[in-house]
Parts: sequence; C-alpha cells; structure tokens
Amino acid sequence: SSTTSKTVIKCKAAVAWGPGRPLCIEEVEVAPPKAHEVRIKVIATSVCHTDSEYLHQINKALKFRPFPSVLGHEAAGIVESVGPEVGKFSPGDKVIPLFLPQCDECERCKSSKTNHCKKNWANTQMGVLADGTSRISCMGQQVYQFLGVSSFSQYTVVPDTSLAKIRNDAPLDKVFLLGCGVSTGYGAAMNAAKVEKDSACAVFGLGAVGLAAVMGCQAAGARRIIGVDINPDKFDKAKMLGAAECVNPRDHVKPIQEVLVEMTHGGVDYAIECVGSPAVMRAALESTRDAWGVCVIAGWTETEEMNVLVEKLLMGRTLKGTYFGGLKSVRDVPKLVDAYMNKELKLDEFITHRLPLDQINEAFDMLKRGESIRAVISLWPED
Amino acid sequence: SSTTSKTVIKCKAAVAWGPGRPLCIEEVEVAPPKAHEVRIKVIATSVCHTDSEYLHQINKALKFRPFPSVLGHEAAGIVESVGPEVGKFSPGDKVIPLFLPQCDECERCKSSKTNHCKKNWANTQMGVLADGTSRISCMGQQVYQFLGVSSFSQYTVVPDTSLAKIRNDAPLDKVFLLGCGVSTGYGAAMNAAKVEKDSACAVFGLGAVGLAAVMGCQAAGARRIIGVDINPDKFDKAKMLGAAECVNPRDHVKPIQEVLVEMTHGGVDYAIECVGSPAVMRAALESTRDAWGVCVIAGWTETEEMNVLVEKLLMGRTLKGTYFGGLKSVRDVPKLVDAYMNKELKLDEFITHRLPLDQINEAFDMLKRGESIRAVISLWPED
Repeated sequence: SSTTSKTVIKCKAAVAWGPGRPLCIEEVEVAPPKAHEVRIKVIATSVCHTDSEYLHQINKALKFRPFPSVLGHEAAGIVESVGPEVGKFSPGDKVIPLFLPQCDECERCKSSKTNHCKKNWANTQMGVLADGTSRISCMGQQVYQFLGVSSFSQYTVVPDTSLAKIRNDAPLDKVFLLGCGVSTGYGAAMNAAKVEKDSACAVFGLGAVGLAAVMGCQAAGARRIIGVDINPDKFDKAKMLGAAECVNPRDHVKPIQEVLVEMTHGGVDYAIECVGSPAVMRAALESTRDAWGVCVIAGWTETEEMNVLVEKLLMGRTLKGTYFGGLKSVRDVPKLVDAYMNKELKLDEFITHRLPLDQINEAFDMLKRGESIRAVISLWPED
Repeated sequence: SSTTSKTVIKCKAAVAWGPGRPLCIEEVEVAPPKAHEVRIKVIATSVCHTDSEYLHQINKALKFRPFPSVLGHEAAGIVESVGPEVGKFSPGDKVIPLFLPQCDECERCKSSKTNHCKKNWANTQMGVLADGTSRISCMGQQVYQFLGVSSFSQYTVVPDTSLAKIRNDAPLDKVFLLGCGVSTGYGAAMNAAKVEKDSACAVFGLGAVGLAAVMGCQAAGARRIIGVDINPDKFDKAKMLGAAECVNPRDHVKPIQEVLVEMTHGGVDYAIECVGSPAVMRAALESTRDAWGVCVIAGWTETEEMNVLVEKLLMGRTLKGTYFGGLKSVRDVPKLVDAYMNKELKLDEFITHRLPLDQINEAFDMLKRGESIRAVISLWPED
C-alpha cells in the first residue's frame, strides 16, 4: 500500500459540470493523498438535499459553488492509501468521511460547547483541500471537491481530520447514513435541543434528517412526538420511528403553528426544523410553548433570512441552529455505528431505494419528488 | 389596620387619560384590597421605557393599552393594608411590587427552566386585577392598572403573588430600582445569557437595563465588556459599572456588528440587547462569535419582528429572550436587595435625578432625551 499512495487512480465519478445540469458519469483521475490526507475507496453514498440544492437551487443554501464539481458528502468506504504524516489510518480501514472535521487542536475542538471545528473551513467551502487544490481532475481540468468529501466518485481523497474510523463489521451500505442526514437529525434532538424525558416535540420535515430527529426525540424519552410534512407519504415511516401523530399543514386552514399549539394546549416543548425553509423555521419557533420552548434549526440555508416575532423570544423561547447535530464528528460517528450494531439506532428504515452510480440522476429526481428517503448509490458493480 | 382595609383611600396619582398625552395629576380613589390582594403606600418609583412606550409609541412595545390608566411598574413601598386570605404580608412591611408574579403553584413556577409565572397573566395584560376590575378610579371612572402595578399613585393595590417582602433596613428610594430595570439587565447577564468567566461580552443600549447588564457581566467574571450606545453621555457610567470600552455606532461607517467582530477577532461570546429595537437585535446577534455565541434580548417589543440570517444560527449561535432577567421574582428580588445592602450590587449609580410626582412628565421627557438613567419620583412631599 505504500506504493499505491503515489499512484494516480483512474475511476468513475459523477461530475457536475454546471448548475442546473444533470450529473455526467466520467472517468476522473484521483491524485494520491498529500500529507495528512487519506484516499478512500467509496463503497456507498447517497444524495442529500444539500447536494441537490448545490446543483439546482442557485439562490438557496450555499454561497459558494465552484464548478465542475464532484458532489456527495454522505458516504462510507475503505481506506485505499494514506499520505505522509497520517498516523491514525491504514489501508483496509472502514471509514466514514466527514464534511465537518474534528482536529482536536483548535479552540473549538477543545471546547465542549461546540462541534464547529475550524480546520480547513475556508478551503472546504471553496471546494479544495488544505493546499488550495482538489485531488480530482477530469480531462486535465481540476474538479472541485464538495464539502471536502466528493463521494460521487469511486475514489476520493479527504483530510485525515475529516474521517472517522469505524468498526470492521459495520455494513457500509447502511452506516454511510451516519455521514450526514441521520447524524444531523438525531444529534439535533439529543445534543442541540437536549430533548427531555416526557416532553412534547414537533419535527418539521420528515426526510432523512427529520426522521432521524423523530428517532432522537424518542431515544430521549419524549412523551409525544408530532411529525409535520406536506407529503403524507412520509407519515408511515415517521410513525415507525416514533412519531405518535403526523400532521399535514395542507389539511388545515390555520397556520400549522396554531394547529400545533391547540393540539398541545400551548405548544410543544421542542421543535426541530429539518427543511431549511425560513417560513417553516418561523412556524417551528411559534409552535413551541411560552416559557421554555426550544426551536432548533437543522435544515440548511446559508443565504436566507427568517422573520422572528420578538415577543416569541421574550416570552421565554430559545432559537438555535445546529450543524451535523452538534456531534463531535470523529468522536461521535463511531459511537453511532456502535449504537446501530447494538440495535439501539435504526438505519435500515431510511433506505428506500438502491441504484448504481450511473443512475444517480434518478436519485436526485426521486429526492426532489419526495419519493425516496435515501437511495443508496453503489459505486461498484455487484456491490 | 384591619379597619383601613375596608376604607377607600383618596390620594394623588398621575393619570394617563389617553395615548400621546401628558400625565395629569389627579385625586384618585384606591379601593381596599380584595382577597389575596395587598394595598401599598408607594414611596418611590420611576419612569421606565415601557411606561413611555405605552403612552407615546402606539405601534411599538405593547399590544393592549387600555385608557385611562395609571402607569408605573418600577417601585417600592410599604404595606398599608391586606385583604382577606393574605398570609405573607402585614401592614408596615417594606415591599417591592412585581409586574411578574411568582405564585409558586403553576407548572412554570415549579420548573427551574423559567420565571414566566402564569398567575393573572391575561388580566394583567388587560389592565385589571384577578376579578377583572381595577382598584383605582378617578371621578367615578375605572382607571386601568399597568402591568398589575400602577405605581404612579400614592397608593395602589397588587396581588399578593406580585409582591416581594424585603428587609426593613433597605432604603426604598434606592431598591425600587430592583422592581424592573436593574433586575432585568443584571438577570439577563447572569440567568439568561449565563455569562461565563473570562468571556467577552457586548451590551447594546446603556440605559438602566443595559448598565445593569454590564454590571451582571462583570459580576459573572467577564474578561472584556464592550458597551454600545449612540449616546456617548452614557459611556462614563458604563465604565464605572464595568465596561472596559464603549463604542458609538455613529462613529463608524461599518455596521456595528462588523466593528465588534473585528475588535474581538471573531465576535463576542455574549451579546445582550437592551434597547428593544429589531435592528439592534440583529446587530447584537451578528456581533457574537461563531460556534457558541449567545444573544439575549432584554429590550422589549411585543409587536415587531426581527430578521435573522439563518446561517448565523447554523454556525452555532443561540438567540433567546428574557423577561425580568429570568428572575423568580418573589424569591430573587429580596436576594438582590441583600446584595445591594452588602455592597455586592450597585444601585446609587443608576439614579441621576429626583423629582416630585407633579413633575413626572419631566421625567418622561428626560428619559426620551436620553438625559437620565433613572429619575426617582417621590410620591410624598418631603420624602
């Protein structure tokens, strides 16, 4: 394996050539890992809303979006080779790449108050690794990396601080879900909201993040969990994961926050927004109870503003955001893998479809149409 | 005193006959206290911004504002008589009336997470006591009570759950400040923000609430406290109470949040808004640090909305409001009186003027012009 780390690998990847265009399956070249980098063979990945918004919603979600790019940030794989000065990983290790690093050296990693590691932040936002370049190229052109990961490629290179080593018996085509959506939602309930036993909770948006938030509320001992979505096809799964009731805002004339306040005689204790829509964020905040209501924003938008009726805050509410569910990524993702292996955490329920890499555009379409929770994209034939 | 509790008292009060009009000194009749009510002789009071906004800013601050009304909610006095079923108070007790009750019986009083006691809430907002009427009348007309208090009267009647008994050696013309502004600001720093030792803090608005927030930050051990106000006349007092630096947004071309982020290399750990302006609230939130910044709204507005850039939340900030500084009113106000008597809390510094009741309109004007922090209104001649 010391030889492979100097070799360029040619492999298949789904390249986003420009905004609004379908991905194209191309042969790309993946350069060997540089110092403190690891090259991984990606086994399973899936399309998350942020990938889709990067490509299709030009005015939403993200400020910077260089093209061409290899998207994909929710994945699992196997270490293929390591660059110089990498101590913690060896070829063959099972790993989950992380769009949020944990360097254990910055002031934030040293604080228990946050998981927002500063390592490589600016470069990651610009689509490159620590040296300011990407390790992926196609027909001689640099292809930017997405959130430091780029898992829609059979191989990719990530910083060694953006990688969680997981147990060897973990099924990669399941635990890859812990690379983004499930961890974000579960952590939003457990870490950010700190849902208390016997509380009433509402989860807005029942995609992967929201369903995981439902699961997190249940794990925290919530007495009542209400799922909210305009797509009733999500309700069965939400109920399977712990929601006692589900509400469709379109079934009501009143604003959904008023419906929830009535249902709960004053509002829920915790509301978790998993959509990324300012209007839904407002509804979530206003669905919480006076005096101690907590609203956590787990949905993503980098560009939009929400309106907050100040009185709602003055009456005792707290509004906060969360990134990757408040998880210390390198430390906590392997623990969630353990929880799955111990049957304390569900993942199989999130997988609704399986597709090969060359049908990845269909996975984008299904996500947009609300038909899938997660489609597993297999990067390799017969995998 | 068992006889006085059945007598109507005629006394002087400053009556607000309608919005936008100066107060008029009138002879009013103060009915005896009903069950669970206490009639107090008001010794000292002052004009707070909420009084002023009730009268003059029709579209701001408060939704309901019945007239005629006796305003005033920051005061101290002496129990004159008690109604039936009052166990905790006797004539002669020194007391501070409370616009926020603490009944010790509702679910909120029983929770350590909030101070928002529900007792009499709806009636208080409508300007009446528990039975739906006011105890004050003028020329045969019912005069509404403000926030359940109405301290711009020589006598007033309050619920026994809206009254803190304080030590007998406390000077009422100082400790009355604990009835609103100072407690709100001090508590915003200590209870709501939970300012940590060695942190950096910014306080927006250096009136009584803001100056008390500065004092609270200092008491909590903040390393650096930055005062922010467009009126530089407030800066000396802010420095006296603990602000190392003061900044005037009008001295800068850049938005004040950018100035603060630069001064603190990334933002303050805690920002406390003590103005009640949505634009200032936004600036306060954006002046806090990524990853763990906390912004507490202590300024009051019931009607307005603030715009929140969602990314600021997602990057790890928390936004919350506070009411009466998160203090459990009956329990905590006497403790703050003790702290003042033990020289652990400053109050004298907040008093800039002294006026008799018949000059109360001048106190409103000085507050609006930013000339006063607090003018003590003496309700009695020679007091």
